[in-house]
Formats: sequence, C-alpha cells, structure tokens
Amino acid sequence: MNAEIIAVGSELLTPFRTDTNSLYLTEELNQLGVEVIFKSVVGDDFARLVAASQHALFRSDIIVFSGGLGPTEDDLTREAVSEALGAPLHRDEEILAAIERRFAARGWKMSPNNAKQAEVLEGAVVLPNPNGTAPGQWLSGKFDGRERIVILLPGPPHELKALFEEACRERLRAKLPTAFLATRVLKVAMLGESQVDARVAPIYKRFNDVQTTILAGAGEIQLHFKSRAETLQAAQTRVDEAADAVEEELDDAVYSREGQSLEQIVGYWLQMRNATLAVAESCTGGLLGERITSVGGSSRYFAGGAIVYANAVKSELAGVPGEMIERHGAVSREVAAALAEGIRYRCESTLGIGITGVAGPGGGTPNKPVGLVFHALASAGGTEVIERNFPGDRKRIRWFATTLALDMVRRKLM
Amino acid sequence: MNAEIIAVGSELLTPFRTDTNSLYLTEELNQLGVEVIFKSVVGDDFARLVAASQHALFRSDIIVFSGGLGPTEDDLTREAVSEALGAPLHRDEEILAAIERRFAARGWKMSPNNAKQAEVLEGAVVLPNPNGTAPGQWLSGKFDGRERIVILLPGPPHELKALFEEACRERLRAKLPTAFLATRVLKVAMLGESQVDARVAPIYKRFNDVQTTILAGAGEIQLHFKSRAETLQAAQTRVDEAADAVEEELDDAVYSREGQSLEQIVGYWLQMRNATLAVAESCTGGLLGERITSVGGSSRYFAGGAIVYANAVKSELAGVPGEMIERHGAVSREVAAALAEGIRYRCESTLGIGITGVAGPGGGTPNKPVGLVFHALASAGGTEVIERNFPGDRKRIRWFATTLALDMVRRKLM
Repeated sequence: MNAEIIAVGSELLTPFRTDTNSLYLTEELNQLGVEVIFKSVVGDDFARLVAASQHALFRSDIIVFSGGLGPTEDDLTREAVSEALGAPLHRDEEILAAIERRFAARGWKMSPNNAKQAEVLEGAVVLPNPNGTAPGQWLSGKFDGRERIVILLPGPPHELKALFEEACRERLRAKLPTAFLATRVLKVAMLGESQVDARVAPIYKRFNDVQTTILAGAGEIQLHFKSRAETLQAAQTRVDEAADAVEEELDDAVYSREGQSLEQIVGYWLQMRNATLAVAESCTGGLLGERITSVGGSSRYFAGGAIVYANAVKSELAGVPGEMIERHGAVSREVAAALAEGIRYRCESTLGIGITGVAGPGGGTPNKPVGLVFHALASAGGTEVIERNFPGDRKRIRWFATTLALDMVRRKLM
Repeated sequence: MNAEIIAVGSELLTPFRTDTNSLYLTEELNQLGVEVIFKSVVGDDFARLVAASQHALFRSDIIVFSGGLGPTEDDLTREAVSEALGAPLHRDEEILAAIERRFAARGWKMSPNNAKQAEVLEGAVVLPNPNGTAPGQWLSGKFDGRERIVILLPGPPHELKALFEEACRERLRAKLPTAFLATRVLKVAMLGESQVDARVAPIYKRFNDVQTTILAGAGEIQLHFKSRAETLQAAQTRVDEAADAVEEELDDAVYSREGQSLEQIVGYWLQMRNATLAVAESCTGGLLGERITSVGGSSRYFAGGAIVYANAVKSELAGVPGEMIERHGAVSREVAAALAEGIRYRCESTLGIGITGVAGPGGGTPNKPVGLVFHALASAGGTEVIERNFPGDRKRIRWFATTLALDMVRRKLM
C-alpha cells in the first residue's frame, strides 16, 4: 500500500512556513510499512483543493490531509473532500454539543461559525481530538472501483500527533498486511561522507534486503538501517547484522548506536567515569557550553567555563599569560592548551577543553586562514591539541569545532 | 500570473529531509508579483513525474521543477517533462563538451552516464549552472492552447539559487506585467502574539490594500507588510505608511525595522555607544554568548564572560560570594545581580549581564518552578533585575531568557 499527504493552508505557500507535519506522518506510515509516494501543499482554495483531492484519489491508496478543519471560511478541507468523493456532509449533533461544552468550560459562548467543525462526511468515522476543537475523520471504501482510505487531520502539530497516535495508528495497522519494520541508526563523528560511504559500500552489498540511508551534517554522519519482515524478530535480526558489520568496520568513529546525540553520549561517559568538564571557548563563543547544557541534568557533570573572546578575558578568566598570547597569537596551539589547562584548574574539573580559531568571515590571514581551529583537552595525564582547517561559513565552522571537541572528550573517556 | 513548484527526489519523501528550495523560490516569485498556488514533492518515478507535470501544466502559468537533473538513472525530470510536453530531447554537443572540460579540469575522466545531462528539450533555452554540472532549462510557449513557462533547476540549493539569480529572475521579469512589490518587516521583542494582534488590528483595517502576516516565535514577533503597485514608489509608500503606523503604536517594543536580528541590533547599539558587554550565564549555559557571537565582527563589542553552571564556578569566575548563594539560593534576584556586576568587573566591560534560573525539566520546586529566570543588567549607573516565569520546555525557556537579556541591553542603550 502507498500513501500521499496533502497539507492544506495558504500560509504554507508563503516563504515563511514549511509543512513539517508530513515528516512526522511519513515516519509513522513508514513504520507501518506504507511508502509515501507524493506530498503536496494546497492553499485555501475550494476548486484547487477539489482537484488535488481527485488526483490523490486516483493515485494513492491512503490519502492523509492535514489542516483546513478549523471554524473559519478559509477552512475548506471537509467541503472539498466531500465534493471530490461525492459524499455529502451532515451536521453531527454530538460533536456540536462537545464543542459547545468545550467553550462553556472556559466560560465562553461558542460563536456560530464553530458549528462548521461538526460537519461529518457520510460514512466517516469521527476521530476525537484530545487537544483541540476540530475532530478528525476517517473514511474507507471504494472510490471509482478502487479501495481507498481517506484521513482528515487538524493542522496544529500537537493536535495532529495526538490524534494520529490515539485514533489512526492501530486503525491503519488493522487495514494493512502484517509486516514488521525494524530500524537502527548509527551516528559517526568527524569522518567525511565519501570516506564513510567507501568503507560501508561493500557491507551494504551483503545486505541487499536492508534499506540504508546516509545523512551528512557538519562533522556528523547518520547511517539509517531499515528492514521489513513477517516477524519483528526477523526484521530486527537483519538490521542488527547490517549495523553490527558497519560498526565493526568504522570502529570507534561510531559514537551512538541507539539514536542518542553526541551531547548525550558525552554526558553518559562523564557520569560513568565520575568526571566533570569545564570549557574555555574563544571562536565558538558559548556554543560548546550551550550544546553540553542542552541536555537536562547536565549540571551533574558540567562545571561551566569561560567565553574568552577578548584577549584580556583569556588571561583574567582562564589564566592564559598575556605574554604567551603576544608571542604565539590568540589562535595558536599554545593558547588552546593554556585555555584548557587554565579553565580545568579554575573550575577544579576532571577535564578542561580550550578552543581558539578563526570563525570568519573576517579575521583570516595567509598563515591563519578562516576555518583554522585549535582544540585542546587537558586532563591529569597531560594535554592533547588537535589542529583543523574546517570548510564552510561561520556557523558551520563553529559547529565543526564544537563537534570535534565533544568527540575528543568521548574518545578520552571511552 | 501564478506558479507552482515541483521538488523531485525520493529522498524528499523520507522523514529526514524537507524541501527548502521552494521557500527560496516562493520568495523570489512573490517579489516578482507571482503567487505560488501549489507545491508538491514527487519521487524518482517516471510515470508519477509525468502525471504530476501534466497536472501542473493544466493548473499553473509557471512551473518550476527543482532536482532530478543529475547523471544517475534516478534523475528523470528531463525525460518526464519531455513526455508531458511532447517535446523531444536532443543531445547538445556544446553542453557535453563543457561537462567533459569540467571533469578534465579536475583531472578526471567523464563517466558515460554524465552525457545524460547534455539532453535538452526541443525549444528550450539552456541556463548555465555556475556551481555544478547539470544546466537548467527554460521553455515558454503554448501547451494545449495555454501560455506556459516551464523552468528546470538543479536540486542542490547553492546551484539552484545561483542559477535562478543569474539566468531566471530577469528573464521572468521580462515576461510579467510590470508590477512592483514593496515589503517591510518589523520585529518586536517580549510581547505576546495576541497582545500585538489586538493593538495592530485597528491599524490593519485602515490599510486594506497592504498584505500583512504575523509570525510568532519564542519572545519574538515578526510583522510582515507587502504591497503591490504600478510603481515601486507607490508600493513603498503604502508599506511604509502601514509599518510606520504600527511602529508608532508598538513604540519601543519594535527593535528592528529592516529585518535585522536582535543580535545585530544589540551589536549596532553597543558600537554606537562605544560600549562593551560581558555575560555570566547559568541556566542558559552559553546560549547568550553563542547568539551574540553568531554575528561576525562581534569581538568589537563583546568581551566574553562565564558559563557559571556549578555554584563554585559562580564564585570563582564571577566573584559571587558563596555565602550569598547559600542564603538566597543560586536562582535568586541577588545572585543574578552579583553575576552581572561580577562579570562586568572581571571583564572590565561597560555592561554586564547575569542570568540564573530553572530551565527544567528537573530542578523545579514550588517556590522556584521550572521557567523561573532572573535577568540582571549591570552598568556604571547601577543594576536592574527582571524576574520572569517562562512557559514551555528547556529549549524554549532558554531562548526566552536570552532574548529578554538581549532586549534589556537594547533598551538600556537606545
């Protein structure tokens, strides 16, 4: 079975908004073994909505609409689907009463336009909306001789998700042939995409039945594995075999086996080793601290640190001798090491990180070009410094640098 | 005239990728006075691509394809459009030679599949691709008696943008009735959406001809104004009148008039006043520093600061007395003020910011719930503290807190 998703709403046709519901819906449908073959965005226009619905009914087994179920004149999904299917709308008094109660509970009077939300397609199952006024609708049956499932969902993501989980997932599963899908994600730090690709390609050939996807970001690569079988165990076994073979090949470059982020993994290792971390950041300006503390509970292993933008602050907060900065320059192996050691000492942490570099766009020189970054990790056993030239713009360079620093901590503790 | 955008590629039908080219294209088309009425994503499937192309040719004046122009068997946009239009493909020897030269320049031999990229639709104008191998194509003429423009663009965003700017924008403008579009964006900090909405609604009524959009984020609201007229001046005048009236109503809550970010505006004021800034962040963990330093050249006004996660680090790096933390708690008005004053002193900056709060999800108490944040701004004239209870999750609370802190600096310097 295949599916398509139609997002309804003129605001989704502006440069400012993008349809993200379809990503969630695609993931859910894929988990059920359903492929999404088409996605579209239609504005609040009756004729265009009817035409899009007709094309969809011709093309796809399952059609999921999101949005256009509200109370305003612009909300036309119900009316358009009714027209396309030839299924008249009836007012459902029970839904109307529920909407009225919802308003009354807040001490408001329901304005008459809300009655629209109680209109139901003939033959449709009403899907209660736990987080909003407009219920969803489910219709399955023959259309022009073809078996079709049509699902109407509200547009606000938290309404759509709750409604899909509670009222659609199992209802869909019951309609589908039994198929189990197993997935795995491996995450890899600081290897290039082509490098990873070349090393895993021979393994992928041995696992023709496992679907693989490679996604590359700045300093991070995700390898997705997906397998379908008649039992969950059979699917899981194939996915695990493929992922394990890739993990063996890439060895300690794989930092995450169950989808955890690098920040989570670093936190995990710090807690495992009963260690704490402090950072002194120059060109990354707080991004490393921000990434580490984006994980709830990070105060258990993160002491804090300094954002050492001005040279005087490098001395004042991280104890880097002014003379050293003068001699080697703020962007140097020596200053990176002194930052790591100084912040470790000041914060009394197990490990200290120092980062200094040229994030650009200005500030580069022939000897110290934009993208040059020194990363230092200080511990009781000494200080390690890694020098790198990162490609890309300011944002990308800062992301690369903090990813490398996090990976240095992980490798140190592993 | 109206347009639709078709993004081609099976990877855009996975849960991991979203089509962002269409946001750029929509902005460009809107600037030319063209409305986008439909967007879709189609996989690498010949029959589905042909059908989607036919629907588009029936529905829209301008059809822009992005992607599917590469050298692999999966790249089918040229072939599908050829089929839908009934316009045969011919190999263009000049393009082929250019592709071969591109490979030769890198010391590589062109593999035969690349020849596919030299196939041109009969009657099409070839649009050179400054950043890649596959050229774009432009075809305009009658299709089933309707005047149509069909544009084929490569999928990688940097190729698509460069090609659109160099070869499409003016070519399209020449085909369109002269219409000028003027736009303005006002940005507002720390007011609620409904509050702003209520205050601007009466003004919007006076400017029926100006299209307005309100976009709300955490602690920030954008008001977009758009007007079309036969001269640029006429359009600009109406947009400016509407924006000025709104600005008068919202007064100093409006921080940006030309689309600049809050971080840029804060940097602008610091430079104007010849002032410098230092920060001491507890619950925001580096996010404030990261936002300030996301602007290139921020070293001219940002000294740096401290990420004071552990209490001992609050004392060590920002000079907060341990006894004060014990007495009032780390999350308190007093500690926020001491952080701001201490970091201002240590970094010898004109202004100092201190932030301390409960970002969650853990760590809340009845007296100090998740979302409670104290923001302090220290200057030569004294220290101001603002206490707020922010709604939402960790990420949202941290974003709110740093936005409020940036806005305090702006208001101080204005």
